[in-house]
Amino acid sequence: MNDPAIITLLTDFGSLDCYTGCIKGVILSINPSARIVDVSHDIQPFNLTSASYLITTYYKLFPSGTVHVAVVDPGVGGVRDPIAVSFEGYVFILPDNGLLTMTLEGRRDDFKARRIENPSVMREKISHTFHGRDIFAPAAAHVSLGVPFENLGPETFRIETIENLHVSTTPNSITGAIVHIDRFGNYITNIKEKQLERFDPATLSVRLGRFTLLGLNRTFSDKDPGELLAYIGSGGRLEIAVSKGSAADVVKLSSGAEVTVRGKEPAA
Amino acid sequence: MNDPAIITLLTDFGSLDCYTGCIKGVILSINPSARIVDVSHDIQPFNLTSASYLITTYYKLFPSGTVHVAVVDPGVGGVRDPIAVSFEGYVFILPDNGLLTMTLEGRRDDFKARRIENPSVMREKISHTFHGRDIFAPAAAHVSLGVPFENLGPETFRIETIENLHVSTTPNSITGAIVHIDRFGNYITNIKEKQLERFDPATLSVRLGRFTLLGLNRTFSDKDPGELLAYIGSGGRLEIAVSKGSAADVVKLSSGAEVTVRGKEPAA
Amino acid sequence: MNDPAIITLLTDFGSLDCYTGCIKGVILSINPSARIVDVSHDIQPFNLTSASYLITTYYKLFPSGTVHVAVVDPGVGGVRDPIAVSFEGYVFILPDNGLLTMTLEGRRDDFKARRIENPSVMREKISHTFHGRDIFAPAAAHVSLGVPFENLGPETFRIETIENLHVSTTPNSITGAIVHIDRFGNYITNIKEKQLERFDPATLSVRLGRFTLLGLNRTFSDKDPGELLAYIGSGGRLEIAVSKGSAADVVKLSSGAEVTVRGKEPAA
Repeated sequence: MNDPAIITLLTDFGSLDCYTGCIKGVILSINPSARIVDVSHDIQPFNLTSASYLITTYYKLFPSGTVHVAVVDPGVGGVRDPIAVSFEGYVFILPDNGLLTMTLEGRRDDFKARRIENPSVMREKISHTFHGRDIFAPAAAHVSLGVPFENLGPETFRIETIENLHVSTTPNSITGAIVHIDRFGNYITNIKEKQLERFDPATLSVRLGRFTLLGLNRTFSDKDPGELLAYIGSGGRLEIAVSKGSAADVVKLSSGAEVTVRGKEPAA
Repeated sequence: MNDPAIITLLTDFGSLDCYTGCIKGVILSINPSARIVDVSHDIQPFNLTSASYLITTYYKLFPSGTVHVAVVDPGVGGVRDPIAVSFEGYVFILPDNGLLTMTLEGRRDDFKARRIENPSVMREKISHTFHGRDIFAPAAAHVSLGVPFENLGPETFRIETIENLHVSTTPNSITGAIVHIDRFGNYITNIKEKQLERFDPATLSVRLGRFTLLGLNRTFSDKDPGELLAYIGSGGRLEIAVSKGSAADVVKLSSGAEVTVRGKEPAA
Repeated sequence: MNDPAIITLLTDFGSLDCYTGCIKGVILSINPSARIVDVSHDIQPFNLTSASYLITTYYKLFPSGTVHVAVVDPGVGGVRDPIAVSFEGYVFILPDNGLLTMTLEGRRDDFKARRIENPSVMREKISHTFHGRDIFAPAAAHVSLGVPFENLGPETFRIETIENLHVSTTPNSITGAIVHIDRFGNYITNIKEKQLERFDPATLSVRLGRFTLLGLNRTFSDKDPGELLAYIGSGGRLEIAVSKGSAADVVKLSSGAEVTVRGKEPAA
């Protein structure tokens, strides 16, 4: 027998309520052998940029066939569509509000998307405020049972993206943004390790706010406690931290703030 | 083979400690194939009213046969009894302190209850402070293995209820209470959608504290950011929210505060 | 068929990020039928003493064969080794930084330990900052699949312990420390129930900070709300609480603070 389908959950529902319990109940009522994996329910409420980054960090680590549900949905009950997106053997079930911006970056034709409109993959009565329970959870459960992707609803060719999440380059610089601040106060940017490879490491500097950091470090313990450092994080992106401390407390910038890397290409 | 039994957990244990880890270990030692579902462990400590409401939102969404464990237990080690309650194919395992008040509202004879007293469904040594681990978890695991409900202990015909959780009506008004404040600062009341149906919607007003709201809205986005609105929430009850904001921050009432709906019955 | 292997997770990763989601993805990619159990992800960051205590409370409650992963790892990327420790039918996968101090207390030869060095039980590329994903998760998944303990890496005979976690005794006193403060503000010490048994209970007093408590109580409700009490907690250790309140708010001592019990041995 095959292993039962895995369904991951990412939400901003927190744990003071039972919204996630409701979602799990709906899934298990439809597919009692689904294996539900809590990724996080404490995404900063309505922070689409952060959620968009976080999805890039975990989705590929799960086995092919996993159904990834993400419900960060400031527009619930409004005009945004519920969608399903399929690529690399994964299916994403989520509102069409930009949550896949960073995951789909650079892709054009190698994914498929459907608007979720088929009433038979939803609950009978749809509330205006809790589509996680009434649309996303049942749609994910049905997909995990083998309902064909095509049956979810009409194909769609344009899905929403978050603006200002894009990295610009000049011959001597790369400018991106802080896309997430983690529990430890580390800043994570949208600048990828690969984009930095064209510079001579000895010439690199990183500027954010009123701080300029020279060179990249390997890990936190390379610096004395309290000192700022720039490094390639575990997600393969440029990060800024304070050794044994919080960069967010020292630098005091918010998510979305600009980060610029300067450097020189090695002489040929 | 049947799908393995589902056991849900609702507690106020938080996650700074490992109380929930202990409960899970006990369950899996007795029934290694039980499927444990975390509903929430961050219920406001000792808030029985809130827990009583939350249970109504999720229990029915799980498949019949699910064992629901709820441990919000300010009287642990004191005189309250551990009980098991059975109805609609579900079994609840919890302290007898009112946690089922809102779930059992209006029921008389269609549930059965037992005091959990049979030592063979408990741990050998019972601590005075952690009945979640020593009584509720093992009892739930044994029920999930098929131990007959009748074997848990003697039948009981009276279970505790929380006072002041009851809705009063006059010809032109319905008065209830705030029973839960959710993560987003939304107020949830114990007034049900059905109770409002006798009024002409055009005549409805909702009063809480020094605020009076006219009419019901459909969802948050019906109002401008910062404005208060009243609506029927996803649990089928009257709620009060601030669009893109927190009603709790604006209205500044606590759980338990009175909410009154006024209206007129449609002319015949 | 055997029940699938259980893997528990204890971390200080919190839930604002998706570090735990990454760990779960890696485990399920290697062993899709592993049963992952969240113990807690909200251990106070870097608090090895607290984590060391908490592990003692739950590990034995799980079925034999369980793989316990603990990632509280202030030294990640530095010199500490990743290790696997086996005893009583459990395997622990964790950094060698003292996390097993209280669990292994008093043991000498009845456990085995290996440094995790075999590249075939790790991810291909090891980051400097996220060994949870790159080393601990895959090693645990491989152990859960039946990879022999000996294959993880070379045997090691000395594992790290946390200093100052040891209890000293005189004929009339036992001195230990606060090792954990739980969600309710209860103080948990490293003094065991058994160590107190040599004193006549009528002669016992507990001193912490400027407070002296006479005698042990059975449970919270033995005292009036707001009063301090000392009792044997559910983990079998001396604890100090405030009935319906928080000892931490009243006593204002931190983890690590000294606690002294005085008493007299019963006359022969």
